[in-house]
Amino acid sequence: MNWYLQNGKDSDVVISSRVRLARNLDKIPFKTRASKEDMQKVLNKIEEITPSLGYGLKFLKLKDIDDITKLTLIEKHVISPDFAIDKEEIGAILINEEENICIMINEEDHLRLQVFSSGMDLENLKNLIVEIDEKIDGLLDYAFSEQYGYLTACPTNVGTGMRASVMVHLPALTLTGNITKVLNVVNGFGMNIRGIYGEGTQSQGDIYQISNNQSLGITENEIIKNLKTITEKVIEQERLARKYLAKNQIELEDRVYRAYGTLAFSKKLTSEECRNLMSIIKLGTDLGIIKELNDSKVSKINLYTQVGNLQKYLGKNLDAYERDIKRSEVIKQIISE
Amino acid sequence: MNWYLQNGKDSDVVISSRVRLARNLDKIPFKTRASKEDMQKVLNKIEEITPSLGYGLKFLKLKDIDDITKLTLIEKHVISPDFAIDKEEIGAILINEEENICIMINEEDHLRLQVFSSGMDLENLKNLIVEIDEKIDGLLDYAFSEQYGYLTACPTNVGTGMRASVMVHLPALTLTGNITKVLNVVNGFGMNIRGIYGEGTQSQGDIYQISNNQSLGITENEIIKNLKTITEKVIEQERLARKYLAKNQIELEDRVYRAYGTLAFSKKLTSEECRNLMSIIKLGTDLGIIKELNDSKVSKINLYTQVGNLQKYLGKNLDAYERDIKRSEVIKQIISE
Repeated sequence: MNWYLQNGKDSDVVISSRVRLARNLDKIPFKTRASKEDMQKVLNKIEEITPSLGYGLKFLKLKDIDDITKLTLIEKHVISPDFAIDKEEIGAILINEEENICIMINEEDHLRLQVFSSGMDLENLKNLIVEIDEKIDGLLDYAFSEQYGYLTACPTNVGTGMRASVMVHLPALTLTGNITKVLNVVNGFGMNIRGIYGEGTQSQGDIYQISNNQSLGITENEIIKNLKTITEKVIEQERLARKYLAKNQIELEDRVYRAYGTLAFSKKLTSEECRNLMSIIKLGTDLGIIKELNDSKVSKINLYTQVGNLQKYLGKNLDAYERDIKRSEVIKQIISE
Repeated sequence: MNWYLQNGKDSDVVISSRVRLARNLDKIPFKTRASKEDMQKVLNKIEEITPSLGYGLKFLKLKDIDDITKLTLIEKHVISPDFAIDKEEIGAILINEEENICIMINEEDHLRLQVFSSGMDLENLKNLIVEIDEKIDGLLDYAFSEQYGYLTACPTNVGTGMRASVMVHLPALTLTGNITKVLNVVNGFGMNIRGIYGEGTQSQGDIYQISNNQSLGITENEIIKNLKTITEKVIEQERLARKYLAKNQIELEDRVYRAYGTLAFSKKLTSEECRNLMSIIKLGTDLGIIKELNDSKVSKINLYTQVGNLQKYLGKNLDAYERDIKRSEVIKQIISE
C-alpha cells in the first residue's frame, strides 16, 4: 500500500515523516550556473545507474508525466511545485511503486533524495536514505568538500544536505488558542514550523510542518534526534489540548459531528472547506468519537479530495465547479465502502 | 391522530388552517369591565353545558393544567400566550382528544371558539365552527345586536366575530428575496400577514400567518372566500419560487442536505437553529429531495423539538442547556423510527 494511505506511529498527531538529502554530482556545475547540456548530462548519468540502484525505482522524465499526475505528486508532497513546472524540460524523478522513495533530479540540486513514511518514523527513514545515498555514492561521484561536507546549490543546505521534517495535525492547539505559543517555542529551538496550506499562522486543515533549519556543523543523527525531541513535545502539547477539549465532551462531539454531517451530506464542497472539515473529523476519529469513519477512510478522503488526486481518481479533467460536486460524491462513496 | 401531526391539502405550503369565533354571553359584562364573580359565572355556565355540547369536549381549568402542558398548548397555537398566564385563575378551555377543537373561556372574550386543521381546510373548518356555534347558541344566550352582529370586547372583532387564518411556509420566497413583495401585496388586500417567530420581516422558520383583518360588514362566507383566494395566490408564488430554485438542482440539494446533515448529526441544537434547519429540510421533503425523512417525521420533529413539547414528550423538566442536548437526541430517535 502507498505510504500515505497507511497509519504509522503517533498518527493521531503525526501525519507523516520525511527525510531528504541534497546532493550534486562532482565536476558538473550547480543548476544555477549550469547549461542545458550540463543538466542533460545529469539526467543521463542517473538514468544509466537506475537499474543498478534497485528499490524498484523507475526513471521518469517530468515532461512525460501528464499535468494531473504531476499535481497528484505535489499534493502527496512527493515533488515540489516549482520543480513540477520544468520549463526547460530537464527534470526527472526516480520513484518506486509505493512512492515512499522519490529522488528529484535537477530540482535546486542535481539530486534530491527523499524518503517518506506515515506517522512518526524518522530513524527508519534516516537509515533508509543513508543506505540509498551510499548506494548512489558507489555508482557516481558526489560534489564533496572535506571542510564543508556535501556541497549544494544553496548554502543553507551545505554540510549534511539533510532536511528532516514531520507533518503534524494540531487541531486542539488551534481550538484552544495555544497554537501561536507552540509555534514560537518550536521556532526558538532551531526548528522551522509553518502551516502547509493557507496564509499566516492559521493553517487550513491545522496541518503544520516541522523541520530542522540547520544542516552544517551538526550530524545526521543529531538532526533526527533534535527533530524527534521537539516533535514529541508538540505531540504532548497537542494531546494535552485534546484532553482539555474532551472535558466538555458534548461540545466536542457536537463540533465533530456537525463537521461530519456537512461532510457526509453536502452535495458540493470546495477543497478548502473539505480540508477544514476533515481536520475536525480526524480529531474526532483520533479521539474515538466518530464511529462512522476509520483511519483508512480518513486517509483516503484526505487524499482523493485534493484537486489533482480527485481528477486522477475519477480519470477525467474537471473544472472547479464540477470538482466541488464530484468531491462530495467521492466522499459519500468512501464513507459507504 | 392529533391534527398537527397530520398532513392536509396543499401541505407543501399550508401548514395549518384555523377559524375562530369571538362570543360573549348576554347580560354578563365583557371581561374588561367584569368582576371576578362575573367571570366565575361564565365558567360555571360553560362547565354546565359541556356534557350537552358533545364533540368529546372536556372542561379544564387553566389553574389545573401544569406549566409545561400549558406551554405545549401555546406551541401548538391552541391557546394564546397571554391567556395561559391566568393570574386571576378564571381561565378554562374546552378541548377534545384530537385537539382540533379548543374553546378558550375568559380569554379576551367570554368564549373564543377555535377549530384547527392541518393543510388548507378553511371551508370544512367554517362548517364545523358554525355547527358548534349554533349548538352553544341553543344552550346559552349570546350578546348580539341586530345592528352590529355579535358584540365583542374589542371593536375589531364585532360583527361576525370571525377570524380565519392559515399558517404558510414560505422558504423559497425568502431564499429568492421575494418575501417582502408578497407580504406587501397580501397586506394590501385587507389581510394581515406576519411572521410567527422572531422579529421583523424575516420570520424564523419562514412561517407566516395570513388572516382577515375585517369582521364587520362582511359575511362569514366572504371572509373564508377572500382568505382562500389570497392564500392560493401566495401558494402559487411560493411554488413558482420553488420551481425557480429547483432549476439549480445541485445548489438546492446542497443547501437542503447540509441542513439535514447538521440536524441529524449535531449533539445539541437550540430551538431557533432547529426551526431554521427544519424550514429548509421541509422544503427538501416537499420537493422530494430528502429521502431520509417523510412528512410524518417532519411534523413530529417540528412538534417535539419545541421547548414545552420536548419536555412533555420526555416527561421531565429540563434547563435550556439540557434541552439543547435532548432536542438532538429526540431528533435522532424520530429519524431512525
